[in-house]
Formats: sequence, C-alpha cells, structure tokens
Amino acid sequence: MQNTPNTDDSAHNKAWSGRFSEPVSDLVKRYTASVFFDQRMAEQDIRGSLAHAAMLAKQYIISEQDLADIQRGMAQILEEIRVGKFEWSLDAEDVHLNIERRLTNLVGDAGKRLHTGRSRNDQVATDIRLWLRDAIDQILALIGDFQRNVLQLAEEHAATPMPGHTHLQVAQPVTFGHHLMAYFEMLQRDAERFTDARRRTNRLPLGSAALAGTSFPIDRAFVARELGFEAVCENSLDAVSDRDFAIEFCAAVSITMTHLSRLSEELILWMSPRFGFIDLADRFCTGSSIMPQKKNPDVPELVRGKTGRVNGHLVALLTLMKGQPLAYNKDNQEDKEPLFDAADTMIDTLRIYADMILGIRVKADAMRAALALGFATATDLADYLVKKGLPFRDAHEAVALAVRAAETRGCDLADFTLDELRVAMAHVNGAGERLDSDIAGVLTIEGSLGARNHIGGTAPEQVRAAIVRARKRLA
Amino acid sequence: MQNTPNTDDSAHNKAWSGRFSEPVSDLVKRYTASVFFDQRMAEQDIRGSLAHAAMLAKQYIISEQDLADIQRGMAQILEEIRVGKFEWSLDAEDVHLNIERRLTNLVGDAGKRLHTGRSRNDQVATDIRLWLRDAIDQILALIGDFQRNVLQLAEEHAATPMPGHTHLQVAQPVTFGHHLMAYFEMLQRDAERFTDARRRTNRLPLGSAALAGTSFPIDRAFVARELGFEAVCENSLDAVSDRDFAIEFCAAVSITMTHLSRLSEELILWMSPRFGFIDLADRFCTGSSIMPQKKNPDVPELVRGKTGRVNGHLVALLTLMKGQPLAYNKDNQEDKEPLFDAADTMIDTLRIYADMILGIRVKADAMRAALALGFATATDLADYLVKKGLPFRDAHEAVALAVRAAETRGCDLADFTLDELRVAMAHVNGAGERLDSDIAGVLTIEGSLGARNHIGGTAPEQVRAAIVRARKRLA
Amino acid sequence: MQNTPNTDDSAHNKAWSGRFSEPVSDLVKRYTASVFFDQRMAEQDIRGSLAHAAMLAKQYIISEQDLADIQRGMAQILEEIRVGKFEWSLDAEDVHLNIERRLTNLVGDAGKRLHTGRSRNDQVATDIRLWLRDAIDQILALIGDFQRNVLQLAEEHAATPMPGHTHLQVAQPVTFGHHLMAYFEMLQRDAERFTDARRRTNRLPLGSAALAGTSFPIDRAFVARELGFEAVCENSLDAVSDRDFAIEFCAAVSITMTHLSRLSEELILWMSPRFGFIDLADRFCTGSSIMPQKKNPDVPELVRGKTGRVNGHLVALLTLMKGQPLAYNKDNQEDKEPLFDAADTMIDTLRIYADMILGIRVKADAMRAALALGFATATDLADYLVKKGLPFRDAHEAVALAVRAAETRGCDLADFTLDELRVAMAHVNGAGERLDSDIAGVLTIEGSLGARNHIGGTAPEQVRAAIVRARKRLA
Amino acid sequence: MQNTPNTDDSAHNKAWSGRFSEPVSDLVKRYTASVFFDQRMAEQDIRGSLAHAAMLAKQYIISEQDLADIQRGMAQILEEIRVGKFEWSLDAEDVHLNIERRLTNLVGDAGKRLHTGRSRNDQVATDIRLWLRDAIDQILALIGDFQRNVLQLAEEHAATPMPGHTHLQVAQPVTFGHHLMAYFEMLQRDAERFTDARRRTNRLPLGSAALAGTSFPIDRAFVARELGFEAVCENSLDAVSDRDFAIEFCAAVSITMTHLSRLSEELILWMSPRFGFIDLADRFCTGSSIMPQKKNPDVPELVRGKTGRVNGHLVALLTLMKGQPLAYNKDNQEDKEPLFDAADTMIDTLRIYADMILGIRVKADAMRAALALGFATATDLADYLVKKGLPFRDAHEAVALAVRAAETRGCDLADFTLDELRVAMAHVNGAGERLDSDIAGVLTIEGSLGARNHIGGTAPEQVRAAIVRARKRLA
Repeated sequence: MQNTPNTDDSAHNKAWSGRFSEPVSDLVKRYTASVFFDQRMAEQDIRGSLAHAAMLAKQYIISEQDLADIQRGMAQILEEIRVGKFEWSLDAEDVHLNIERRLTNLVGDAGKRLHTGRSRNDQVATDIRLWLRDAIDQILALIGDFQRNVLQLAEEHAATPMPGHTHLQVAQPVTFGHHLMAYFEMLQRDAERFTDARRRTNRLPLGSAALAGTSFPIDRAFVARELGFEAVCENSLDAVSDRDFAIEFCAAVSITMTHLSRLSEELILWMSPRFGFIDLADRFCTGSSIMPQKKNPDVPELVRGKTGRVNGHLVALLTLMKGQPLAYNKDNQEDKEPLFDAADTMIDTLRIYADMILGIRVKADAMRAALALGFATATDLADYLVKKGLPFRDAHEAVALAVRAAETRGCDLADFTLDELRVAMAHVNGAGERLDSDIAGVLTIEGSLGARNHIGGTAPEQVRAAIVRARKRLA
Repeated sequence: MQNTPNTDDSAHNKAWSGRFSEPVSDLVKRYTASVFFDQRMAEQDIRGSLAHAAMLAKQYIISEQDLADIQRGMAQILEEIRVGKFEWSLDAEDVHLNIERRLTNLVGDAGKRLHTGRSRNDQVATDIRLWLRDAIDQILALIGDFQRNVLQLAEEHAATPMPGHTHLQVAQPVTFGHHLMAYFEMLQRDAERFTDARRRTNRLPLGSAALAGTSFPIDRAFVARELGFEAVCENSLDAVSDRDFAIEFCAAVSITMTHLSRLSEELILWMSPRFGFIDLADRFCTGSSIMPQKKNPDVPELVRGKTGRVNGHLVALLTLMKGQPLAYNKDNQEDKEPLFDAADTMIDTLRIYADMILGIRVKADAMRAALALGFATATDLADYLVKKGLPFRDAHEAVALAVRAAETRGCDLADFTLDELRVAMAHVNGAGERLDSDIAGVLTIEGSLGARNHIGGTAPEQVRAAIVRARKRLA
Repeated sequence: MQNTPNTDDSAHNKAWSGRFSEPVSDLVKRYTASVFFDQRMAEQDIRGSLAHAAMLAKQYIISEQDLADIQRGMAQILEEIRVGKFEWSLDAEDVHLNIERRLTNLVGDAGKRLHTGRSRNDQVATDIRLWLRDAIDQILALIGDFQRNVLQLAEEHAATPMPGHTHLQVAQPVTFGHHLMAYFEMLQRDAERFTDARRRTNRLPLGSAALAGTSFPIDRAFVARELGFEAVCENSLDAVSDRDFAIEFCAAVSITMTHLSRLSEELILWMSPRFGFIDLADRFCTGSSIMPQKKNPDVPELVRGKTGRVNGHLVALLTLMKGQPLAYNKDNQEDKEPLFDAADTMIDTLRIYADMILGIRVKADAMRAALALGFATATDLADYLVKKGLPFRDAHEAVALAVRAAETRGCDLADFTLDELRVAMAHVNGAGERLDSDIAGVLTIEGSLGARNHIGGTAPEQVRAAIVRARKRLA
Repeated sequence: MQNTPNTDDSAHNKAWSGRFSEPVSDLVKRYTASVFFDQRMAEQDIRGSLAHAAMLAKQYIISEQDLADIQRGMAQILEEIRVGKFEWSLDAEDVHLNIERRLTNLVGDAGKRLHTGRSRNDQVATDIRLWLRDAIDQILALIGDFQRNVLQLAEEHAATPMPGHTHLQVAQPVTFGHHLMAYFEMLQRDAERFTDARRRTNRLPLGSAALAGTSFPIDRAFVARELGFEAVCENSLDAVSDRDFAIEFCAAVSITMTHLSRLSEELILWMSPRFGFIDLADRFCTGSSIMPQKKNPDVPELVRGKTGRVNGHLVALLTLMKGQPLAYNKDNQEDKEPLFDAADTMIDTLRIYADMILGIRVKADAMRAALALGFATATDLADYLVKKGLPFRDAHEAVALAVRAAETRGCDLADFTLDELRVAMAHVNGAGERLDSDIAGVLTIEGSLGARNHIGGTAPEQVRAAIVRARKRLA
C-alpha cells in the first residue's frame, strides 16, 4: 500500500463501480502512470542518482557546484519521503520524474542537468536491481532464521518416533527431527538459488541510456563501485530491455513457497484431530464466527494458498516478456507489481514461519501411538530375512504374506510369536527357517529407527550428526 | 487502493525494508486479515445482510423491531462508508466483522442477532458473487461500447484496402474494415463467455451456514429473490467451498485480454514507421525522457503487458484450489485480490480501448502502397487458372513460377504483359494458354477484394453486410 | 501415441542423447512437421474434405465425376488409416497434405482439384473443431456416468454421519451422502461449461480460405449443415487465426480436474490409517517395491498430479496466442498437442473415476467414531440458545465457554449434565437459565443432522430430495 | 516417441474415440504405468544399478558372484535396448521393474538381490538426476554453439547501422552487431543458470531407500563417486520426495525460450516486407498451400509458439508439487513428461537456432534506409547542446521543437541548415546560439554511432571489443 499521489484520484480509491464518472483522459493518465507503485523504489532511485551525479562531476560533465546542489536537494527529498511529506504527483507519472521535478524545484539548473547521459530506461533498470538486491538480502537472512529454528526443534526431537508416510500410508518409522530436517535441506537449496539470482541481479545497467549508450564520456565502472554492483552490464540494448533477473527471482520464490506449502499441508494434517500430532500456538490460528469450538490453522492455510499467488506472478512475468522485440517497451512497466508482491509475500511468510516453527507443540505420544497401525516395520522384517541370506524379492513376498495374516488377525507384526510368523510365511521357500529369536528387536520402533544408521538415514545418531553439520553450513 | 484500516499499520505503508521493526504478532494479524482488500465488498455485504435480516424477520427468527433496527443501522453504516468516515479496524479482521461490530455498536442486540442462521463462510461467498455479478454487468456494457466503436470505424473503412498478412508476410488484400471486424467477432464470443459465467455466478450460497446448513427455519428462495439470484446453490458444502465461478471469470478475462493483446500488437506494428498504417491520438501515447522525437504507443503496450497480469491471476486461482479438501479452508481468502485485480484490469482496459478505437487515424495511402510489395494477388491468378479448368495444384505451381519471375525482374505480377506471364509459367502444361486479357482485372486490388464475395469474405459488400448483422446482434 | 511417419526418423525414436548425429536439415523438417500428432485428426480431415467436395460439385466448381472420384479415393484412404496401412510421410508435413497426396495418387486430377477454394488455414481450423466437438461429446457422456455413480453411492449413504470439516478441523456432522453430492454439483457446472464451450466450437471456419475468403462461389451454409455445425464463422480473418475455443475448453478441463483433485485429496486422506473412513478397491491401488505392507491410492494421487498437467496446457495455449498479429501464424501449430493431451487426460480420468466411485467401501463406524472428537454439535448448542431468545453473539460466547470446560475435562458436550453445562457458561448472562432438558436431543449427531432441514442442508431427508432432483436434471 | 510396451495397447494407439472398447481395468493399468515414457531413462537406470551393485558387493551385502552376474545381465540388457530388441511390458509398470525382471530372468537370484537396500523411490530420483545432468550438459554445449555463431555474425556487422527501436519506434542508430550481442549476453546468463541448476541436480539420492534410509551397511559416498555426483543428499525424506531441481531446470528453460522468443519476434519482423532487413535461408521457411508467392518464417514462429509449451511445463511441475505432504506420493510420476519435453524442446530449438543464425542474410541497405525516417539522431542534437552548456532538460525541449519543425516540413534534422535549426528552437533560451557548424557531423549516423564509445555502447569500436571479451568468456 503506497502513499496516494497528490491528484484528484478519489475515483481510484473507490471500488470500480464508482469509476464510470471518471473521464477517460484521467483514466489513461492513471493507467499509464506507475507512481502508485514505483514510489517504493524512491530510496534506490535517489541512491542511483547520487552515484550518477558523482560520476558526472568526476568526469567534468557537470560542475562540482552542480553536484553539491544535487546532493543537498536529494538529502532534503529523502527526508521528505521518509517523514511522508513528499507530494507525489500523478502528472509526473513515475518515481523518477517526481523526484527530478522536486529537485529542479529545490536547486534549479543543477536538477535539469542530472539526467545528462542517462535515460529513464537505464535508470529504472538500475532502481529495480538495487531494490531487488536489498530484498534478496533480507530473504536470505530470514531463511537463515527459519533454518535455525528448525534445527532447534529438530534437535529436541532427534529421537522422537513418528510414522513416516508415503502415499499418506504408514511406511516406516522416522524421527520427527529427521522429518523436520527435510525442510532444512529444501530451504538450504532455496537459499542457494536466491544467492545465484542475486549474482545475476547485481550488475549495473546505468550508462546504457535509452538503448545505445550515451555520447558523454561516462565512467560506468565508477558508478558500479559506488553502488556496490559486482559488474557492468556489457550490452546496452540487453541492459535496458531484459528482466530475466526478475523472472529468476520469482521462480526462486515459487519454489520456496512450494516447499513451505508442503510443510503447511503437513502442519494442517498433523493438527487435525484425525492425526493430533501437534498443536500450533494460538497466535497462528483463529476461531469461527459460527462454530464456538473451532481453532483453525489459518497461517499454514494462507501460506498454502499464497503459493498460488506467487506462481501467478511468475507466469505474469514470463507472459510479459514473451515475444517482445528489443529494446525497451512500455510492457515492462508491468514487471514491478508482481515482483514487489512476490518479494513481500516471501518476506512476510518467512518471518511468520520462522516464528511459527517454535510455536509447534509436539504430541509425541500420539505420534508413537500412530505407529501401532500400518505395519511400519515390515521392511525391517524383509531386510532381516535378506541378511539371513534370502534374496530380497523372496523376502518381500514372505513379509507380504505375514502382513496379510496380521491384517486378518487384526494385530501388528510384533504381536506374532516366532512360530506364528513362520506359519504365515510358509509359502515362501526358505523364509520361515531363517527367523530366529533376534527378530524381536528388529520389529520394534527403536530397532527400526536405529538400524537406518548412515548419512541421510533416520537413526537418531545420524539426525544429530546432520544437525551438527547443518549448524556449520549456516555459520 | 483501499482505505487504510484504523490501526497503526504505518509499517505496512513503508517499503518492506522498514518492516523488520514490526512485532511478529502484528505481522500475523496483518497476514491473516482481509479487511485491506475485502472492504471493497462493503456494499454487497450490506445488501446481503439486509436480505438475510428481512428473511429472518419474515420467518419469525428475529422480531420486526430487530429488523427495523438493523435496517436503520445499516443505512447509517452505508452512508459512513460512502463518505469515507467509516473506521475500518484491523482487529475486526474483515469487512463482515467490521460492519457487524459497528452495527451492534449502533443498534445493540439486534446487531448481535443478525448472524443467526448464517456463517462468514456463506456470507463471504454471497458477497463475492454479488460483487462479481456487478463487475460482469459492467464488463458486458463496456464490451458493447468497444464493439460499437469498432463498427463505426469498420464502416468508414469497409472498402479501404490493406495487405492481409499471414506469418507477417503479405498474403492477400483485405479491407481495413474487414480486419477490424475480426475483433468484433472475438469480443462477441468474449461477451458470450461472460454471460455464461454470470449465470453460474448468480446462484445463492447463503443458507449454507458454515458448511452443513442451519437448524433455523430459513427461506432461501426468498433471499434469492430479494438479491436477484436466479437459483439457490443446491449443496451447502459445495456452496461455501468452491470458487469455480471465479476461475471461470478469470479465464474469460484472460481470453479477452489475449484478444486485445493481439489488437495491441497490431496497433504497435501499424504505428511503427516501418508500417506507418495508422496514427494513434496523442492521449494514448507518451514521449521519452531522453529522445525528444519519440511518440510511443504506451497504452497498447501496457494492454499487451497486462495480459500477463491476468494470466497470472488465473494461475493463482487454479493453484489455490488444487487439492483442497472440503469444505471451507482459509486458503480461499486468497481468492479476492486476483479476482478484484482481474476485474479492474478488464474494466479499465475496455474503457480505454473503446475510446482508443476512435482515436485511430487511418493512413489509407500507406496501406495501399504496402500492397504493391508482396504479390498479394497471386492467389487470384491461381484461382483464375482453376476457373479456366486447370487443377488447383497445377495452377498453384504455375503461379509460383510467375512470382519467381517477377521477383527476379523486381516487379509485381500486374506489371507483366500477357505474353510475359505465359512465358513465366511455361513449365506447367496448360497454364499459359488459359490466360486471357480478362486477367488484368483479376490482378488489381479491387478485383481481388471484390471477388471474395461470400459470407465471411473481405469483399466490401460483404463487410458492410456483416456490419449490418453485427448491429442487430448488439441491439 | 501415434503411428510413426514413414521416413527415417529413427533418431527421433531414440532419447535426445542420440540426436546429435541427426543433420540439422532433417531436424528442421521434424521440428516444423505436425504429422506426428495431427494424424489423429485424419477422420475429421476426411469428413471435412468430403463435405467441401460435395459443396464444390453442387456449386459446379468441380464436376460430379470429380466428386465421385474424391469420394471413392477417400473411402479407400479411410480404410487404409483404420487398418493401420496408411503410409504417413514426414515429407508431406501434415495430415492434410498426406491425405491429399495419397488421394491424387489414387484418383488423379480430381485430387488436385479438392483444394480449390480452401486453404490449409481454414482446413485445419475445421478439423480441430470437429475433433474437439467429438471430444466434448465424449466428456459430457462420461461426466454423466460419474454423476450417476455418485448418486448411487450418495443414496446408500444419505444418512451415514461423518465429521464435516472446515480447515480440516471437525466442524459439524454431515452425512456422507451429502458430502458426495457436493461433487455432483461441481461436475454439473463442469458439464454446463463444456456445453457452453461446445456451442462456440461448433461454428464453421471453412470458406475463410487463407484469410480473406475465396473468389469461388462457395456455399458455406451447405457445408455447415453437412458437418453439423450450428453456424458459420462470420469473419474469415478471425476464423483462421483464433483458437479461443481451445483455450476455453482447456479452462473447462482445468476446472474439472481441480474439482477431481479435491475429491482425490479427500480419498487419499480418508484411506490413510489416520482417518480410515474408506477403503478403495484394489485395482485403483498398487504396492511398494520395498515395503511389503503397502497399499497405495495411486489413482487418486495421479489425478491430483495430473491437475498440474492440464493447468500447464492452459498456460501453454494462453502464452501461445498472446500478442500474435492477425491472421494465421505458424505458432498456432503448437495448439494441438496441449489440446489433445488435455482431452485425453480428461477422458481417461473421468472413465476411471466413474468406476472408482463404485469401488469405495465406506467404513461408517470409523466415520461415526471420529465425530466423538471435536465438539461437532457446538453450533447446535448455540442455535438452541438463540431459539430460546439469546442473541447469537452471546450464545456463541456461552458455548465457547462450555467447549473450553469440556476440553479441560476431556469429554464431549453431550457428556455434561444440564447443571454442569449451566456452570460452564455462567459468565454469559442469560445463557444457563435458557438450558432445559430438551437440550439432550439437540446435542446428538442425529439431532444435529436432522435439524439442517432446508434445501441444500445436510438433513438425510434433504439429501434424498436432492438426489431425486439430481436424477431429473441428468435425465 | 517411445517404443511401444509389449502388451495389447492398440486402443492407446488410436485416437481417444476408439478407447471406449477398452476395459477399465486395462485403462487403470495404462493410467498408472510409466513405462511408456520412463523407458527413456533406461541407460541411466542401468548405470545406477551397476554402481549400487558394486557398492553392495564392496560392503559384502551381496557376493562378488552376484555382482558379476548382475554386470553380465545388465550388459546384455543394455545391448537389447540399444538395438531395439528389449521387450517392454506394461505389466511391469515402469522402466525399473522391466529391467529388474529381465535381469532375474537372465541371471536368477542375483537379480532378486539387486534391490537390496534401495527402493524405487530413491532409484527413480537417481535416474532422473542422471538423465537431467546429461541433458544439461548437452544444452550447455548447444548454447555455446549458438553464441559462437552470434559472435561470427556480430563481427561481420559490428559497424552495420540499423535503427534501434524502443516501443517499436525509431530511437537511435545502433549497429546490427551490437543488437546481436544483446542475445549473446542473454544466453550467457542462461548458461549460468543451467550451470547453477546442474550443481543442485548433481547430488545423490540413492541410499534413501523408500524414505528413511536402509538397515544395510551401505556406502553412499562410494556410489556418488562411481556415478560422478558431487555430493550426497543429506536427508532421506527430502531426497525421495522433492523435485525442485526439475522445477529450477524448467524455469531456466522458460527464460531461455523467452529470450529466443524475442529474437524470433525480431526475425519475423525483420523478414516482413515492411521491414525487409533480413532474409532467412529457405530451409527455415515454408510456403503456402494456397498462396503461391509465400515464404514464411516457420522456424522462428514455432520457437515463439513453443515458449508457451515450456511455460506450461513449468506451471505443471509447480502445481504438481504444491501442498504434497512428505514423502513420496504417486503424483510425482507426473514429473517426467513435462521435464523430458522441456529438455527436448530446448535441445532441438538450440540446435536449429545455432544453425539459423548463420542462415541470416543481412540487407544492410534497407537497414540504413530505415534510419532516414524517425529522427534517430535527435538525442545527439540534445547531447550536443548539453555539451555546449545548456541544461539537459532545456536541450531536450529545444530539440523537440526542432523535430516538430522537421515533421511539418517532411524532412530529417540533418536536412536543416544551421539557421533553420536555430529558428526552429528559438523558443528555448540559449539553445540556438549554441549551435555551430560542427553540428553537421553530430547529426550523421556514423557520428551518432561513434559517439557512444564506452563499455556497453554501440560504437563499432566498442562492439568489436565486446566480441573479443565474449570470445574469452566462451573459451
């Protein structure tokens, strides 16, 4: 939500139904203007202008006095914007012209000289990159917060057993800490992707002017250093017209939100009375206007829903750029709202999620109870037979028979006596005689967990080791 | 842009970079609240509440006095909203609770009785449908405006020849009026789609309560009549949880914007100096901050770009609903912003486009001149040979040879003498001898146009007839 | 999967890794050819050609003998295709030229005359529409099958109670039949959408020729009647270049698959041991290669996944058409694969789903047991208080207190004595004294269900009435 | 296109319309099987199995004899697949079971032991990553080919002037070489993205078994080294369930195709008679079935259209993964077809495009002639005035007046005498008197080009330097 430009756009503040009284010419002005949303880049715009002006002075394109005037004027404008006193004008179309006009109004001819050797095309490309770089830095910090909190909860529950599901059927026991660490890994890759996207964002388009460069003797490397860019865009036409860094960023956001949509789905399931595996702190839930008993996991549901929102923004940007001839076209103005909203959604979601992780109350008893149903240690029984020499495919078949017998009886595998197990798998040659009294330990939950003792496995020892490694990767 | 809820959300008004000072609990409140955007359904919410209250009174569930109190309170609230005096509160989460609280504050117990027999789940579903029905009606009216202006321009240019392109190569002569009428047809189907979507939108969910209906003796048919709904949603679970009408609407918007993106592409091409077929009125164009000579077709470019925006909204809604179990989930709150923005974009774009059509200045000379290049009447020559008895495939081959000869010579087909033409197609048996002096008329632009004289064809006579039929379809 | 065109494209049959040995010119041929996938429209292409030829003869553009030759040749070609003897050639690019070449090869000059007065542009547009019309008819029939089976299962379970969820929390009791009927309604709207899309598909483009119509005296109305089209496309440029009917169809598929993704999500949840509400017939499930105990709901999972597939096709078509200038461009060749696959996915999914509905075994005891947790009748208690005169908001508050007391005690609301209930809600004035002995019936599941006795409500009586109405709508 | 599994799926080979005779149970089998498309990972599957078997033997989990048997069997199977003799069976569902069955059939018990300590879940994840790594390597090589050919053409035309456009209006002169180099830069970033995606793809999931790891004493680092993976996936649940690497790859494909869609749009425009800037070699074009004169740029049009195709695949994968609970679900089977087709499309398109670049014939005269229209040197005039001391905003205004005067006169700026120029800009104080005879050189095309002489600018000297740097980056 932005400050409202200082013009009579009350029509715009109403729902569309009121708009019919708006003259088309005003509507065109509003339709083509970007100041409603690009004013968010005001600080970046000023930062870029100051670096540009410093370079112009260094290259003797403007005077030192001009530079001083521009610096003085910009300082005042920045202050006006920060305290909310800046008067945004729809007539000045965008953030760039609004600031330039005010500057000329404050410092005269020096303001008129600021635009020497640049164009709005390279100016806006610079502003967006500066803005996005800041956003990425914030996202990277927040992913770190999220991961640290995941580690804390995972450490507490490195040995807490729960049913691991595939196809939402009980598969094998895992520890809750191990399960949580899956999300550490996902977000770790997300952080890598944002870091990669930052590298491609952090290149300077300024100096490309409208599309071809400028006839003034500019020093682009100087401007790049001033603004902290790692490199200079090497082709002016490309620099003003491409937005692939924005698309790449949105793709990284979509993937991250997809990861969080999965965790959200799980939180919602686990909090349902059918699972009852966790409870979420009240501040992430709300009640019902009609049903007095409800406590709904609103935040995870919204995160799941907002995945659609950011996927939409990604599609918007891809559609936007498809088939555009070089160089800059006005279509590109449509890049900002999806980009801003994708970044906002990512930032808000990560902040809340980092906090929400620590708001999970684990009901370890319910998790363990759920392991009683579903024959979670059937694979362990098969592996046991294999270790005693039965080929895996035969062992698999033998255990399938045992499971069927247990289902008929309505019991778990661990409830069978050794003889009963042997009878159950009698149809597979060599299976029953390989069973021995050591099978008992194999069929327990702790036995199953502890056996998966290799890198990536769910043995509590491995989970703890993974957490230690993870801490180092974050540091 | 909405009125700002009355709470200290100044953090939200700043760019995201300022947000870090915001406590997470406030952030959660803002993240889960919808009053920022759903306040635009305030009038619909009040309309729905009044119909609900009237029904409750009619069914003796509340008293006549309660009804009178509610009506009085709502009248005042509506007035407060219209003049911008209503104090929206973030703490009250959404438009529904904001209004209900104010009502109770104004009229006491009657306000507390309003929510009898309903839930926010069916209430919000009703509000959205009312809102969307209004939006569709506005869109249908605007499509009509657009079409009427297309008809006016098409009538003026029913006989103005221009090159018809396929693959952006010159294909055959068409009239500019005929070309414009293609867009009349596209928008006509768009109007049909919006009408169909309206029918499915215009069904009443109210009475479904949270998900199962209510134990009060409600009269849903009465409410439907009061609110102008054509039918009652027949299943309560479906009524509160589905948003397919919103997806269908967004799909219709995407298709319409895709149509307008094509017209925009053409306006941009035609206004380029390489084509020079038209000029656009200044109010739809802007200049450059660096290049003093520029006049850029900003509005068509933005329309082309905004196609991405609405495609994104469609994807957002589809992703949102994918895999949601019944009934209502909080994810659904994410339906509104894409829907609102899709409708706004459609409405603004149609209003501007209707006007822009009449701002097209046609450069008929340039269009005709462009027909000199590209052998636009080659098909006519082939058709001529067929009519004289040559099989089409042979005629096609003969004319291909003639075109190659003309290209070599650097002239048009019409520049050949009869004998030269015969020589050029000598390699195809039976071609040359079928040529006669009547061929001259066939190879002219007017001859070519006039010959396509059947329904759907580009003959000026047919274009005029199509316009007459179109006027009737609109009436 | 198509028959392989008769050319040495063995490279294409290999994985891409083998392709590097393919010369670029062959690659270009394969890249631009469509015969790999458009041969599916062979029957439609022949149907269209026969109607076109009949019209040409009727209009004396070709002779009766030509027509007879064409009919004879086409009969043979159709037979060759049906028995798999037709030799598709990559060199002939597409289905149209393959058939025309074979025709000329079979019947000579008559074959060369068939293309008189038409172009591949209007021919392919006609073929697609004929093909899509057939696909829609098949989809409509299958939706009907699905719905009939839903009705059968819903009728069996019109009174079977289960927990109705919102936010995956227990909300209120509903009947399983009522829940199923939500999907009847969704698919009913889907059928409406396909019917609407069919109407816009069923218009004849033939006669538009390349883009401008033809100079032959064609009779388009005759061809339309022959082919069962309801109308003639009124503008030739529009007719050859637009594919909005395909986009609209894909949008309808996406919405239908989204509906089925929701039902799939529910089947997966219900079949999970955590819910245990249903079992799915074995033929819709598979096992695990490692875990002998698994029975996985593969089919619903695939349906959920295939929602992405069809959403992708919709986006592909929208992106495809964005910004294309008129009239036909080669881009449009990319319309077919997404369209075909969307239709295939829809048809296969509906066929399987219709069958799968009857493969659901309902575990009514588990459903009822699940109602014991979650205070499903809390709303009924609130409604009771309202009926006794308490304003709804106060009743809501009173019941919230009672729920909290029951949670503390670890019991359900129905387990409280009258006095205990009164004590629990003592903090709300006027609540406790309104409770009476008739409250017992209100708090039972059957009491709650039966009370929602209005159109759309979950009372078994209403569910049965809804089923009766639904049967009539299908008939 | 794949080999057809050896089962009676003739129904599948027909168009859908024939399918109704297929029993539902066969349909389910086909619906759930993946062997139709995953057989293309056969080589990767075998590579993975051999590394797994070698590890099992090294860890004494299977015997050396078992390993030898497996190696022998796999060698034969690989040969059978390569020569097309392998009998794929639909009953064996997927590539993994088909190969394992054949192995057991060939070598007996050793085959049954191969699946020890792994699951299809980690097996398929390994296969996809191996497959995708190969595809990325191929793509990277092809991007290099494309770039090298761009450099060759750009070098030839480093000084060839053409109109640089913004908004498709003439903006400033650029050189054709400079314009081409914009695409070098875009594809360079694309290559970076694929390289980054490769890094995240190249991590080993094997050893995760079904979801929790295995109870066998496996050595994952050994397997990683054998297969060339850079690292081991650190969490088993994550390793079997995530497909973010596939999404990231598809996003990189979408961005690359978007870049190529822009170049395609330009080739189509430039080849249109309205521009006439280039001609494309015949092998990338086709003719018309009705219009004998046509030469259509089919390949660029298809590339533009296929952008939709790959965007669709990206959306498909994002939708697929949204909201899936851990760990593996059958939905994931839907990841392959979009991924394969995205890679195929990318590879074919790059191969053709690399060749097509060298098939561009440049019409330098037409490019230069086009510069005469549109006042391309207006910015140079403004810059000139600025260098003489006029503030930029005033200079911009002065030149705008001169342009208006030239438009009225119907001439270019260079056609004015010095005095006429002075008169034209008389309304701006200080403008006219700053004009001098040196202005003539400024207003020429070569003057304008040469003046943009800084890194990224269009001066021929800079373009050549950029090409030299580019060559080094590729080496």
